[in-house]
Amino acid sequence: MIILGIDPGYAIVGWGVIEYNRSHFTVLGYGAIETPAGLKTEQRLSMIFDGVNELIKTYKPDQMAIEELFFNTNITTGIKVAEARGVIIMAANKLGVEVYEYTPLQVKQSVVGYGRADKKQVITMVTMLLNLPKPPKPDDTADALAIAVCHAHTGTSRISQYYNQK
Amino acid sequence: MIILGIDPGYAIVGWGVIEYNRSHFTVLGYGAIETPAGLKTEQRLSMIFDGVNELIKTYKPDQMAIEELFFNTNITTGIKVAEARGVIIMAANKLGVEVYEYTPLQVKQSVVGYGRADKKQVITMVTMLLNLPKPPKPDDTADALAIAVCHAHTGTSRISQYYNQK
Repeated sequence: MIILGIDPGYAIVGWGVIEYNRSHFTVLGYGAIETPAGLKTEQRLSMIFDGVNELIKTYKPDQMAIEELFFNTNITTGIKVAEARGVIIMAANKLGVEVYEYTPLQVKQSVVGYGRADKKQVITMVTMLLNLPKPPKPDDTADALAIAVCHAHTGTSRISQYYNQK
Repeated sequence: MIILGIDPGYAIVGWGVIEYNRSHFTVLGYGAIETPAGLKTEQRLSMIFDGVNELIKTYKPDQMAIEELFFNTNITTGIKVAEARGVIIMAANKLGVEVYEYTPLQVKQSVVGYGRADKKQVITMVTMLLNLPKPPKPDDTADALAIAVCHAHTGTSRISQYYNQK
Protein backbone atom coordinates (compact mmCIF):
# COMPACT_ATOMS: atom_id res chain seq x y z
CA MET A 1 0.00 0.00 0.00
CA ILE A 2 1.63 3.24 -1.15
CA ILE A 3 0.31 6.42 0.50
CA LEU A 4 0.89 9.97 -0.71
CA GLY A 5 0.52 12.40 2.19
CA ILE A 6 -0.15 16.03 1.34
CA ASP A 7 0.00 19.16 3.50
CA PRO A 8 -2.02 21.51 1.30
CA GLY A 9 -0.72 25.00 0.70
CA TYR A 10 -0.46 27.71 -1.88
CA ALA A 11 3.16 28.84 -1.63
CA ILE A 12 4.34 25.44 -0.33
CA VAL A 13 2.67 22.04 -0.77
CA GLY A 14 4.40 19.51 1.46
CA TRP A 15 4.39 15.91 0.23
CA GLY A 16 5.62 12.56 1.46
CA VAL A 17 5.25 9.07 0.03
CA ILE A 18 5.42 6.02 2.26
CA GLU A 19 4.85 2.35 1.72
CA TYR A 20 2.99 0.68 4.55
CA ASN A 21 3.22 -3.08 4.60
CA ARG A 22 1.95 -5.04 7.58
CA SER A 23 2.91 -2.39 10.17
CA HIS A 24 6.24 -1.64 8.52
CA PHE A 25 6.97 1.77 6.94
CA THR A 26 9.28 2.42 4.01
CA VAL A 27 9.81 6.03 2.96
CA LEU A 28 9.82 6.35 -0.82
CA GLY A 29 10.28 10.10 -1.09
CA TYR A 30 9.39 13.48 0.36
CA GLY A 31 9.69 17.13 -0.51
CA ALA A 32 7.69 20.23 -1.31
CA ILE A 33 6.15 21.82 -4.37
CA GLU A 34 6.98 25.51 -4.09
CA THR A 35 5.41 28.25 -6.20
CA PRO A 36 7.05 31.65 -6.70
CA ALA A 37 5.31 34.62 -5.07
CA GLY A 38 5.63 36.74 -8.22
CA LEU A 39 3.32 34.58 -10.34
CA LYS A 40 -0.44 34.98 -10.74
CA THR A 41 -2.71 32.74 -8.66
CA GLU A 42 -3.79 30.69 -11.66
CA GLN A 43 -0.17 30.13 -12.71
CA ARG A 44 0.75 28.96 -9.22
CA LEU A 45 -2.24 26.61 -9.21
CA SER A 46 -1.14 25.19 -12.57
CA MET A 47 2.31 24.50 -11.10
CA ILE A 48 0.67 22.69 -8.18
CA PHE A 49 -1.48 20.65 -10.59
CA ASP A 50 1.58 19.69 -12.64
CA GLY A 51 3.54 18.85 -9.50
CA VAL A 52 0.86 16.56 -8.11
CA ASN A 53 0.45 14.84 -11.48
CA GLU A 54 4.20 14.27 -11.60
CA LEU A 55 4.23 12.82 -8.06
CA ILE A 56 1.39 10.43 -8.83
CA LYS A 57 3.02 9.28 -12.05
CA THR A 58 6.37 8.79 -10.31
CA TYR A 59 5.28 7.04 -7.12
CA LYS A 60 1.97 5.47 -8.24
CA PRO A 61 0.31 5.85 -4.81
CA ASP A 62 -2.77 3.77 -4.04
CA GLN A 63 -4.27 6.48 -1.86
CA MET A 64 -3.81 10.15 -1.02
CA ALA A 65 -4.18 11.45 2.54
CA ILE A 66 -4.64 15.20 2.88
CA GLU A 67 -5.35 17.57 5.73
CA GLU A 68 -8.77 19.15 6.07
CA LEU A 69 -8.85 22.93 6.11
CA PHE A 70 -9.80 25.09 9.01
CA PHE A 71 -9.89 28.82 8.80
CA ASN A 72 -8.00 30.65 11.41
CA THR A 73 -7.05 34.31 11.45
CA ASN A 74 -6.15 34.93 7.84
CA ILE A 75 -9.17 34.42 5.57
CA THR A 76 -7.38 35.64 2.42
CA THR A 77 -4.62 33.05 2.82
CA GLY A 78 -7.31 30.50 3.68
CA ILE A 79 -9.09 31.08 0.37
CA LYS A 80 -5.87 30.59 -1.57
CA VAL A 81 -5.03 27.39 0.32
CA ALA A 82 -8.55 26.09 -0.37
CA GLU A 83 -8.12 26.87 -4.08
CA ALA A 84 -4.86 24.90 -4.10
CA ARG A 85 -6.44 22.06 -2.14
CA GLY A 86 -9.23 21.82 -4.73
CA VAL A 87 -6.67 21.47 -7.50
CA ILE A 88 -4.75 18.80 -5.55
CA ILE A 89 -7.69 16.51 -4.76
CA MET A 90 -9.09 16.94 -8.27
CA ALA A 91 -5.72 15.92 -9.74
CA ALA A 92 -5.72 12.78 -7.57
CA ASN A 93 -9.28 11.92 -8.57
CA LYS A 94 -8.45 12.37 -12.27
CA LEU A 95 -5.64 9.85 -11.96
CA GLY A 96 -7.74 7.34 -10.01
CA VAL A 97 -6.12 7.89 -6.59
CA GLU A 98 -8.59 7.71 -3.69
CA VAL A 99 -8.60 10.72 -1.38
CA TYR A 100 -8.84 10.54 2.43
CA GLU A 101 -9.09 13.57 4.68
CA TYR A 102 -7.89 14.06 8.24
CA THR A 103 -8.18 16.92 10.67
CA PRO A 104 -5.00 18.30 12.30
CA LEU A 105 -6.34 16.82 15.55
CA GLN A 106 -6.56 13.33 14.05
CA VAL A 107 -3.04 13.63 12.66
CA LYS A 108 -1.53 14.67 16.02
CA GLN A 109 -3.56 12.04 17.87
CA SER A 110 -2.35 9.36 15.52
CA VAL A 111 1.32 10.33 15.29
CA VAL A 112 2.10 11.69 18.76
CA GLY A 113 -0.71 10.08 20.73
CA TYR A 114 -2.56 13.19 21.77
CA GLY A 115 -4.37 15.91 19.82
CA ARG A 116 -2.74 18.91 21.46
CA ALA A 117 0.81 18.00 20.49
CA ASP A 118 2.82 20.90 19.11
CA LYS A 119 4.49 21.05 15.71
CA LYS A 120 7.90 20.16 17.12
CA GLN A 121 6.60 16.97 18.73
CA VAL A 122 4.96 15.93 15.47
CA ILE A 123 8.23 16.43 13.58
CA THR A 124 10.23 14.50 16.18
CA MET A 125 7.80 11.57 16.13
CA VAL A 126 7.65 11.43 12.32
CA THR A 127 11.44 11.43 12.14
CA MET A 128 11.61 8.55 14.62
CA LEU A 129 8.72 6.51 13.24
CA LEU A 130 10.03 6.69 9.70
CA ASN A 131 13.65 6.26 10.79
CA LEU A 132 14.78 9.37 8.93
CA PRO A 133 18.40 10.56 9.29
CA LYS A 134 17.19 14.06 10.28
CA PRO A 135 13.91 16.01 10.53
CA PRO A 136 12.49 16.66 7.04
CA LYS A 137 12.45 20.28 5.89
CA PRO A 138 10.41 22.41 5.38
CA ASP A 139 7.91 21.74 8.18
CA ASP A 140 5.22 21.27 5.51
CA THR A 141 7.07 18.17 4.34
CA ALA A 142 7.19 16.75 7.87
CA ASP A 143 3.46 17.47 8.16
CA ALA A 144 2.77 15.66 4.90
CA LEU A 145 4.62 12.58 6.17
CA ALA A 146 2.66 12.81 9.44
CA ILE A 147 -0.61 12.82 7.46
CA ALA A 148 0.54 9.74 5.51
CA VAL A 149 1.42 7.98 8.79
CA CYS A 150 -1.96 8.98 10.24
CA HIS A 151 -3.70 7.42 7.26
CA ALA A 152 -1.67 4.22 7.61
CA HIS A 153 -2.54 4.02 11.32
CA THR A 154 -6.19 4.98 11.22
CA GLY A 155 -6.98 3.41 7.90
CA THR A 156 -5.89 -0.02 9.15
CA SER A 157 -9.17 -1.78 8.50
CA ARG A 158 -9.30 -0.44 4.97
CA ILE A 159 -5.66 -1.33 4.42
CA SER A 160 -6.12 -4.91 5.72
CA GLN A 161 -9.00 -5.22 3.33
CA TYR A 162 -6.71 -4.04 0.57
CA TYR A 163 -4.15 -6.75 1.31
CA ASN A 164 -6.82 -9.41 1.64
CA GLN A 165 -7.98 -8.57 -1.86
CA LYS A 166 -4.51 -8.95 -3.35
CA MET B 1 -13.14 39.60 -28.03
CA ILE B 2 -14.90 36.56 -26.56
CA ILE B 3 -15.39 36.62 -22.78
CA LEU B 4 -16.30 33.65 -20.59
CA GLY B 5 -17.97 34.85 -17.40
CA ILE B 6 -17.99 32.48 -14.43
CA ASP B 7 -19.95 32.58 -11.18
CA PRO B 8 -17.88 30.13 -9.15
CA GLY B 9 -19.68 27.49 -7.13
CA TYR B 10 -19.44 23.94 -5.96
CA ALA B 11 -22.94 22.58 -6.61
CA ILE B 12 -23.59 25.05 -9.44
CA VAL B 13 -21.07 26.90 -11.59
CA GLY B 14 -22.86 29.55 -13.65
CA TRP B 15 -21.32 30.39 -17.02
CA GLY B 16 -22.00 32.80 -19.85
CA VAL B 17 -20.09 33.53 -23.04
CA ILE B 18 -20.41 36.87 -24.80
CA GLU B 19 -18.68 38.47 -27.72
CA TYR B 20 -17.94 42.15 -27.20
CA ASN B 21 -17.11 44.03 -30.35
CA ARG B 22 -16.86 47.83 -30.32
CA SER B 23 -19.55 48.30 -27.64
CA HIS B 24 -21.86 45.66 -29.10
CA PHE B 25 -22.69 42.45 -27.24
CA THR B 26 -23.50 39.09 -28.83
CA VAL B 27 -24.45 36.24 -26.53
CA LEU B 28 -22.84 33.00 -27.65
CA GLY B 29 -24.11 30.73 -24.89
CA TYR B 30 -24.95 30.40 -21.23
CA GLY B 31 -25.81 27.74 -18.70
CA ALA B 32 -24.59 26.03 -15.57
CA ILE B 33 -22.33 23.14 -14.67
CA GLU B 34 -24.15 21.25 -11.93
CA THR B 35 -22.61 18.56 -9.75
CA PRO B 36 -24.69 15.95 -7.91
CA ALA B 37 -24.75 16.22 -4.11
CA GLY B 38 -24.18 12.48 -3.68
CA LEU B 39 -20.68 12.49 -5.15
CA LYS B 40 -17.41 12.99 -3.26
CA THR B 41 -15.82 16.45 -3.30
CA GLU B 42 -12.98 15.35 -5.57
CA GLN B 43 -15.43 13.81 -8.04
CA ARG B 44 -17.46 17.00 -8.16
CA LEU B 45 -14.29 19.04 -8.71
CA SER B 46 -13.32 16.73 -11.57
CA MET B 47 -16.73 17.34 -13.17
CA ILE B 48 -16.18 21.09 -12.86
CA PHE B 49 -12.70 20.76 -14.40
CA ASP B 50 -14.11 18.75 -17.32
CA GLY B 51 -16.98 21.21 -17.76
CA VAL B 52 -14.71 24.25 -17.91
CA ASN B 53 -12.36 22.50 -20.34
CA GLU B 54 -15.34 21.67 -22.55
CA LEU B 55 -16.57 25.29 -22.46
CA ILE B 56 -13.16 26.69 -23.40
CA LYS B 57 -12.76 24.20 -26.24
CA THR B 58 -16.27 24.96 -27.52
CA TYR B 59 -16.29 28.76 -27.30
CA LYS B 60 -12.56 29.55 -27.49
CA PRO B 61 -12.81 32.59 -25.18
CA ASP B 62 -9.98 35.12 -25.19
CA GLN B 63 -10.44 35.90 -21.50
CA MET B 64 -12.20 34.58 -18.42
CA ALA B 65 -13.88 36.90 -15.91
CA ILE B 66 -14.65 35.38 -12.51
CA GLU B 67 -15.98 36.65 -9.23
CA GLU B 68 -13.67 37.04 -6.26
CA LEU B 69 -14.66 35.15 -3.14
CA PHE B 70 -15.75 36.66 0.11
CA PHE B 71 -16.59 34.60 3.10
CA ASN B 72 -19.89 35.26 4.71
CA THR B 73 -21.67 33.17 7.26
CA ASN B 74 -20.99 29.66 6.03
CA ILE B 75 -17.26 28.90 6.16
CA THR B 76 -17.70 25.23 5.19
CA THR B 77 -19.50 26.14 1.97
CA GLY B 78 -16.92 28.88 1.43
CA ILE B 79 -14.05 26.39 1.53
CA LYS B 80 -15.79 24.18 -1.04
CA VAL B 81 -16.47 27.13 -3.35
CA ALA B 82 -12.83 28.20 -3.06
CA GLU B 83 -11.72 24.67 -3.96
CA ALA B 84 -13.95 24.78 -7.05
CA ARG B 85 -12.71 28.25 -7.94
CA GLY B 86 -9.10 27.04 -7.81
CA VAL B 87 -9.93 24.25 -10.25
CA ILE B 88 -11.71 26.70 -12.60
CA ILE B 89 -8.96 29.32 -12.86
CA MET B 90 -6.27 26.62 -13.13
CA ALA B 91 -8.20 25.04 -16.03
CA ALA B 92 -8.33 28.42 -17.79
CA ASN B 93 -4.62 29.01 -17.25
CA LYS B 94 -3.77 25.54 -18.58
CA LEU B 95 -5.61 26.33 -21.81
CA GLY B 96 -4.05 29.77 -22.18
CA VAL B 97 -7.12 31.83 -21.24
CA GLU B 98 -6.28 34.95 -19.20
CA VAL B 99 -8.14 35.29 -15.91
CA TYR B 100 -9.61 38.54 -14.56
CA GLU B 101 -11.24 38.88 -11.16
CA TYR B 102 -14.00 41.19 -10.01
CA THR B 103 -15.64 41.78 -6.67
CA PRO B 104 -19.45 41.53 -6.42
CA LEU B 105 -19.40 45.30 -5.82
CA GLN B 106 -17.59 45.93 -9.10
CA VAL B 107 -20.04 43.69 -10.97
CA LYS B 108 -23.11 45.48 -9.59
CA GLN B 109 -21.53 48.88 -10.12
CA SER B 110 -20.75 48.03 -13.71
CA VAL B 111 -24.03 46.35 -14.66
CA VAL B 112 -26.63 48.26 -12.66
CA GLY B 113 -24.71 51.45 -11.94
CA TYR B 114 -24.45 51.18 -8.19
CA GLY B 115 -22.79 48.69 -5.90
CA ARG B 116 -25.71 48.05 -3.59
CA ALA B 117 -28.04 46.77 -6.30
CA ASP B 118 -29.93 43.60 -5.37
CA LYS B 119 -29.82 40.30 -7.24
CA LYS B 120 -33.11 41.00 -9.03
CA GLN B 121 -31.88 44.29 -10.44
CA VAL B 122 -28.72 42.62 -11.71
CA ILE B 123 -30.76 39.94 -13.48
CA THR B 124 -33.12 42.51 -15.02
CA MET B 125 -30.25 44.63 -16.32
CA VAL B 126 -28.35 41.65 -17.74
CA THR B 127 -31.49 40.48 -19.54
CA MET B 128 -31.97 43.95 -21.06
CA LEU B 129 -28.33 44.65 -21.89
CA LEU B 130 -27.90 41.32 -23.64
CA ASN B 131 -31.34 41.44 -25.24
CA LEU B 132 -32.29 38.02 -23.88
CA PRO B 133 -35.85 36.72 -24.42
CA LYS B 134 -36.21 36.04 -20.67
CA PRO B 135 -34.09 36.13 -17.51
CA PRO B 136 -31.48 33.35 -17.59
CA LYS B 137 -31.90 30.55 -15.07
CA PRO B 138 -30.52 29.60 -12.60
CA ASP B 139 -29.48 32.92 -11.00
CA ASP B 140 -25.86 31.72 -11.11
CA THR B 141 -26.06 31.86 -14.90
CA ALA B 142 -27.38 35.43 -14.84
CA ASP B 143 -24.55 36.31 -12.44
CA ALA B 144 -21.99 34.77 -14.78
CA LEU B 145 -23.30 36.88 -17.67
CA ALA B 146 -23.18 39.96 -15.41
CA ILE B 147 -19.51 39.23 -14.63
CA ALA B 148 -18.76 38.92 -18.37
CA VAL B 149 -20.52 42.26 -19.01
CA CYS B 150 -18.59 43.83 -16.12
CA HIS B 151 -15.33 42.70 -17.68
CA ALA B 152 -16.33 44.06 -21.08
CA HIS B 153 -17.22 47.42 -19.50
CA THR B 154 -14.35 47.83 -17.09
CA GLY B 155 -11.73 46.14 -19.21
CA THR B 156 -12.24 48.62 -22.07
CA SER B 157 -8.66 49.84 -22.22
CA ARG B 158 -7.35 46.31 -22.35
CA ILE B 159 -9.95 45.36 -24.94
CA SER B 160 -9.15 48.37 -27.17
CA GLN B 161 -5.53 47.34 -26.97
CA TYR B 162 -6.57 43.85 -28.03
CA TYR B 163 -8.29 45.15 -31.16
CA ASN B 164 -5.43 47.51 -31.98
CA GLN B 165 -3.11 44.53 -31.99
CA LYS B 166 -5.28 42.59 -34.44
